[in-house]
Amino acid sequence: MEQACCPLLLLLLLVSPGLALAVKDAKPCRRLILYYHDVMFDGANVANATAATVANATALGNFQFGRLVVFDDPVTADEDLRSPPVARAQGFYFYNMKSDYNAWFAYTLVFNSSEHRGTINLMGADLMMEKTRDVSVVGGTGDFFMARGVATFRTEAVEGAAYFRLQMDVKLYECHRE
Amino acid sequence: MEQACCPLLLLLLLVSPGLALAVKDAKPCRRLILYYHDVMFDGANVANATAATVANATALGNFQFGRLVVFDDPVTADEDLRSPPVARAQGFYFYNMKSDYNAWFAYTLVFNSSEHRGTINLMGADLMMEKTRDVSVVGGTGDFFMARGVATFRTEAVEGAAYFRLQMDVKLYECHRE
Amino acid sequence: MEQACCPLLLLLLLVSPGLALAVKDAKPCRRLILYYHDVMFDGANVANATAATVANATALGNFQFGRLVVFDDPVTADEDLRSPPVARAQGFYFYNMKSDYNAWFAYTLVFNSSEHRGTINLMGADLMMEKTRDVSVVGGTGDFFMARGVATFRTEAVEGAAYFRLQMDVKLYECHRE
Repeated sequence: MEQACCPLLLLLLLVSPGLALAVKDAKPCRRLILYYHDVMFDGANVANATAATVANATALGNFQFGRLVVFDDPVTADEDLRSPPVARAQGFYFYNMKSDYNAWFAYTLVFNSSEHRGTINLMGADLMMEKTRDVSVVGGTGDFFMARGVATFRTEAVEGAAYFRLQMDVKLYECHRE
Repeated sequence: MEQACCPLLLLLLLVSPGLALAVKDAKPCRRLILYYHDVMFDGANVANATAATVANATALGNFQFGRLVVFDDPVTADEDLRSPPVARAQGFYFYNMKSDYNAWFAYTLVFNSSEHRGTINLMGADLMMEKTRDVSVVGGTGDFFMARGVATFRTEAVEGAAYFRLQMDVKLYECHRE
Repeated sequence: MEQACCPLLLLLLLVSPGLALAVKDAKPCRRLILYYHDVMFDGANVANATAATVANATALGNFQFGRLVVFDDPVTADEDLRSPPVARAQGFYFYNMKSDYNAWFAYTLVFNSSEHRGTINLMGADLMMEKTRDVSVVGGTGDFFMARGVATFRTEAVEGAAYFRLQMDVKLYECHRE
């Protein structure tokens, strides 16, 4: 029995770096399925637009390489752009491939409702040619204090240069309480 | 007594993902209260300026939406811009709201003194309409190896477009030693 | 013997925040030595270029302050640009010092081979005047699920404005399994 009571070795294994946690079949401790709506500024739609190009595409290829977009986009709990936002997504993306559309994102999900208060910070490659692709949740504040995890992007709608919608399946695997 | 010696269950609870640590009343393992001074380049003040606009504001609203600023700003231990810097803040911010001033930051605190050597990496939304707001500490190097935490911003001074000062209360909740 | 079996105190010390792990002589749980090749677009080399300037340098100093570059650069396992890439590095850097060359990076290492599938996300200051300097690994996905660590940069070659090569010694100190 004493053996069973001696997890010292296990302990050291688990918490000493390199920290190697086997987390097969990991379940997130928190999950948020969100919809991100990007309505591009075209010079005339100030009332509706929530994103704008701040640096134009370069001539490297035909897929907008280098175009940089800043956004303060509404985030909803369902697919409808007109649903009341549950959060804002504040940050930027740019296109970065010469042979296809591909992007890179860094942004903050800002929650300020009776349900959630706080932020989730994310960054990563948006490999647009993949049906789903993962970016990293690298931190959080408030209700999401010190969160870490992964967000899975899925493109759901594209309307030319005017609008696109992503499903963001945010899965936290580290959940702390403030 | 043997029961008390068997934290195996607790262990698994704590380290298995979803890792759910209750950290109510958490105290930082390390805390740095710093002052960030942003002196904007106006075309003539090369000697003093430490930040410059690299992409101009768009016409989306009246609050500089999209203006992108790169900085290598001095960071001091008190509020005085002329105090000897204890670190540099290197990174960027941009404005990203059409109805008010709001910003987004990503940057590195670079320490290179007898007291501290290493870097702290941060990112997050700077919700300027809030008296205080939190960004994430997402990593660190050297003396701040693998750090994680939260930094609380407080605007302390604004002199038009020329200068502003933020208090950055950097609270680390993960402290490793290299 | 029972004493030796009671790591409860140790446990609490280790996992309660502020989480203070002494990791002297830490060994990475995973390590990748990679070579990053940045071939700059000059307006004529679309076929070869993998990076392009999206915002020009400002007049703040003589070291390209503010020049912003977006890249989708090949990453190889040895120093030869013509070796088959083992990953892509997708992201951006900008110069940010008025008295010397200095840069800041945020990017994703994208692996998509039989050996590795997934991404590693990094950010930090590239203190170019230092022989080696560290940026943070802030997250990962796929085979690098939830990774954290440090990447050490070493400049290996610079050919004017056309090309440079960095060795990136990526050391993960948190390794999870998906």
